Amino acid sequence: MSDANKAIEYARANRERFIKELIEFVKIESISTNDDFKLQLVNAAEWAAAHLRKIGIENVSLMDTGGHPIVYGDLLKKPNAPTVLIYGHYDVQPIDPIELWETPPFDATVKGDYIFARGTSDMKGQMMATLNAVESVMKTGDFPINLKFLLEGEEEIGSQNMEAFLHKHADMLKSDFCLNPDAGAISADEPTITFGLRGLAYFEIHINGPAQDLHSGLFGGAVHNPAQALTELIAAMHDANGTITLPNFYDSVRPVTDKEREETAKLPTTAESYLQQTGAPALWGEKEYTPALRTGARPTLEVNGLLSGWTGAGAKTVLPAKAMAKISCRLVPDQSPAEVHRQLVKFMEMNAPKTITWEVKALHESPWAITDVNTNGIRALAAAMETVWGRQPLYRREGGSIGVVAMLQNICGVESGLVGGSLPDDNIHSPNERMHLPTWYKNIDAFIHFFFNMK
Amino acid sequence: MSDANKAIEYARANRERFIKELIEFVKIESISTNDDFKLQLVNAAEWAAAHLRKIGIENVSLMDTGGHPIVYGDLLKKPNAPTVLIYGHYDVQPIDPIELWETPPFDATVKGDYIFARGTSDMKGQMMATLNAVESVMKTGDFPINLKFLLEGEEEIGSQNMEAFLHKHADMLKSDFCLNPDAGAISADEPTITFGLRGLAYFEIHINGPAQDLHSGLFGGAVHNPAQALTELIAAMHDANGTITLPNFYDSVRPVTDKEREETAKLPTTAESYLQQTGAPALWGEKEYTPALRTGARPTLEVNGLLSGWTGAGAKTVLPAKAMAKISCRLVPDQSPAEVHRQLVKFMEMNAPKTITWEVKALHESPWAITDVNTNGIRALAAAMETVWGRQPLYRREGGSIGVVAMLQNICGVESGLVGGSLPDDNIHSPNERMHLPTWYKNIDAFIHFFFNMK
Repeated sequence: MSDANKAIEYARANRERFIKELIEFVKIESISTNDDFKLQLVNAAEWAAAHLRKIGIENVSLMDTGGHPIVYGDLLKKPNAPTVLIYGHYDVQPIDPIELWETPPFDATVKGDYIFARGTSDMKGQMMATLNAVESVMKTGDFPINLKFLLEGEEEIGSQNMEAFLHKHADMLKSDFCLNPDAGAISADEPTITFGLRGLAYFEIHINGPAQDLHSGLFGGAVHNPAQALTELIAAMHDANGTITLPNFYDSVRPVTDKEREETAKLPTTAESYLQQTGAPALWGEKEYTPALRTGARPTLEVNGLLSGWTGAGAKTVLPAKAMAKISCRLVPDQSPAEVHRQLVKFMEMNAPKTITWEVKALHESPWAITDVNTNGIRALAAAMETVWGRQPLYRREGGSIGVVAMLQNICGVESGLVGGSLPDDNIHSPNERMHLPTWYKNIDAFIHFFFNMK
Repeated sequence: MSDANKAIEYARANRERFIKELIEFVKIESISTNDDFKLQLVNAAEWAAAHLRKIGIENVSLMDTGGHPIVYGDLLKKPNAPTVLIYGHYDVQPIDPIELWETPPFDATVKGDYIFARGTSDMKGQMMATLNAVESVMKTGDFPINLKFLLEGEEEIGSQNMEAFLHKHADMLKSDFCLNPDAGAISADEPTITFGLRGLAYFEIHINGPAQDLHSGLFGGAVHNPAQALTELIAAMHDANGTITLPNFYDSVRPVTDKEREETAKLPTTAESYLQQTGAPALWGEKEYTPALRTGARPTLEVNGLLSGWTGAGAKTVLPAKAMAKISCRLVPDQSPAEVHRQLVKFMEMNAPKTITWEVKALHESPWAITDVNTNGIRALAAAMETVWGRQPLYRREGGSIGVVAMLQNICGVESGLVGGSLPDDNIHSPNERMHLPTWYKNIDAFIHFFFNMK
C-alpha cells in the first residue's frame, strides 16, 4: 500500500471523530464583524492552536496582529523538500436573520449528506479538511514535505491586519506554495481550481436631511426625505442594463478576452444553474456577459443593507432625519479599492442634491487576485484532484474576495492554490449554512495526495 | 367680574395642579402603533374617564370599539343651548429613536417655558387644556352650554374603528359643533384655525428576490438585488421636480385657486420659517407651489421607513433576499385612499421588473377634510382667540391627517373647529416632543371664552 493510501485509510477510519471535532470547532461563535464576540475569536484561535499541537505541529503560537490573533505553526523536517503554507480563517459571518435558521446556528446538525451550522462551509470545515489530511499523513508515516500554517481571524472583515503582518513576518512565512481551501467547487462532481478572485470595497453611505425626525404631514412636500434621496442616489448607480454609472468605473477594468469567454462557456455554471441555486424569479445583469462572467470577470455594486425611519410593525408617519445604506463593490483586475472609493465620492459630489448632506465611509477593502496556474503547486493539486474524482479539475474565476491571496503574491511572492469543498448552494453568509460531507471526505483524500505530489 | 373672567381666574390659580395632572397623564405609555402597549391604552382611557368624572361630567364610560376603547361623557343641562362635542385622543406615537431623547420620554420634564414628554403636544396636553377649561367654568358657575366628549385611542393608527363607532352612535353624538384641539398654531403669537387637513394612505412595499440571502461575491452581478430594485422603484415615484409619478395621481386633486394662493401668501409660514423649523439644508418640492401650499394643498408621497439586509455594525457581504419600505401619501381633495392604493399597485405593475416579486400592503387610511368656516362654532372660536391674543386668528390648511374630522362631517353632519397649542417646533412624532406652556395657558383661557361665546 502506498504512503498516500495508508493515510487515506487512516482518514476514512477516523471520519466520525473528524466530524465530532468540527462540531466542537463550529460551536465557538467567532463572528468577527461584531466586537461583542472578541473573546470568542480568541477562543477559536486557541482551539485551532491546540488542535495543531495535538496532531504534532510545532512552534504553534497565537500572534498579535492589533486585531484578532493569527495562529502560526510549522513542521520543518525536510530541508530539501518544498514548503507548503496552509491558509485558513477561523472567523465566521453573523447569523442574522436568525429566525430563518431551521437548526441552531452554532450547534451543528448532521442531516443526510450535510452538516448544518455557521462556519461549516465558510470555512472551519474546509480548514479542518486540511488539518485532518495533515494528521492522517503524520500518523501513518513520515511527512514528505515541510508545512507552515497561517490561520487568521479577520477574513470576513477584509483581513485588515494581514498586510502589516505579512510585511513583518515575510521571512517566517517563506514558502513555495499556499494551499488555500477557502474557495469552493462548481458542484460535488466537478472538482474546481479557482484562479481568479474579485476584490472588495465596502462602504456606508449616510444621508442627513432635517435636524430631527419630522411629522410627515406637517413637513412632507417641503423637505427632501433623506430615505427618498438615498433611493434616488442608489438607483442612479446602475443604468437600465445593470452597468455601473460611477464616473470612470470601468476605466481600469480588463476587458474579457475571447479566450476567457470560450473557456467560461464550457463551465457547467449556466443561467439554469444560477436560477436553481438562487431561487430568484429571473436572472439580472449586463446582457453582453453570461452569468458566470458577470459574477467572475465583471465588477459589481451591491446594496448590502438599507435602514431609515420606522421599520417596526404598523404605521408611523415620520419623515426620517437620516438614511443609511451599506454598499459594496466587487472588483476585478485592474481596479483598486482606493480608486473605487474616489469614484463613489465623485458620484456623490456630482449627483447628491443640495437638499441633503451626505458622508461616505470606507469600511473595508480587499484586492482582486489572479493566480499563475503554471506552477508546481497547481499541477500537484490538479493531479491530486484528478486521482480522487477521476477527472481533471475545472478552472474558473470566482466572484468572492479573499484578501490574503493577493497579499501573499505581492508581499511574499507565494502563489495560492484556491480549492475547497464549499458548494454554491451551501448558503454561506446566509441562514442554514451547510457543508456537503461526501465532498469534504474527497477533499481530505485529495489533500493527502497533494502533499505526496509536492514531494 | 364676568363669568368668563371668574373661570379664567380659577384656571390661573390652578395652573400648577393642571401641570401635575398632565404629568400623571403622559406617564401612561399609550403607544397605539404597537400591540405590546394594549393595556397601557386601557389605563390611559381609564385615567381620562376618571378625570371627566372628577370634574363633574356625567354618563362617563369606556365604550368598546373592537380596538382601543372610546371614552364618552356628557353634561346636558341646557335644553335650549347648543351642544359642543369635545374631541381628543389619548394615544401617542412610538418613542423611537429612543437614544435621541434628552429627557425621559414618559417622565415629563419642565424646562423654562416648555414641558417635554411624548404626548405633551400631540395631544394629551391639548386634551387637558379643554378639560381644564371645562373644570374652570364648572367650578365657578353654571355651565352655559351642553357638552359631549369623544376621546379615542386610535388616532395615531388611523382611527380605524371610528367610522363604525360613529355610525352606531350617531344619535348619542349629535352636536352642533366639535371642538378639536388636535391641530396647532403657526406660532405662539399667531392664533390659528385650521380649515383643511390632508388625508393619509399608508402602505408597506415588500420586494422579494432570491429564495434566501446570498453571498454577494458568488452571486452579485447575476441576480437583481432586492434592495437595489426597491430603490429603483421608489426613486421612480417622483420626477425631478418632486412631482409624484403614480399613474393618474393628480387626476382628482383640486387645483389650488388664485384666492388660496393669495391667502396662503399672507401667512407667516415662509421658506425661511420652514428652514428654521426643520433644520434641513435646503427646502425641496414642487417649484410652482410655495412651501405652505406644498404641505397643505398638495398631496405627497413619503418614505417613512426602509429596511433590507445587514444594518448592524461593520461589513456583511450579503445580497439580501428581500427589502421593505413604508410609504405613505398625504391626500388632498378629492383624492381617496382606495384610489391611491390602486394607483400604487398599478405603478408597481407597470414598473416592477420580472427579476423580483413584490407585494403592496395597505396599512391604514384617513380621509382629507375641509371645514366650513362660516358656522357659529368657528365664529365663536375666532372671537375667543381674538379676545385672548388681541388679534384675529389666521386660517390655514395643515398637512397632517385627523381621520375623525371628515367622519364627523360625513356621518354626523358636524363641523369641527381645529385649533390647539401645538407649535411647529414641538417635535411631535419625533424625539424630545414638547409643549409650550404659555400657549397652553392661552388656549385654556380661549376655550373658556369659547364656551360662553357659544351660548
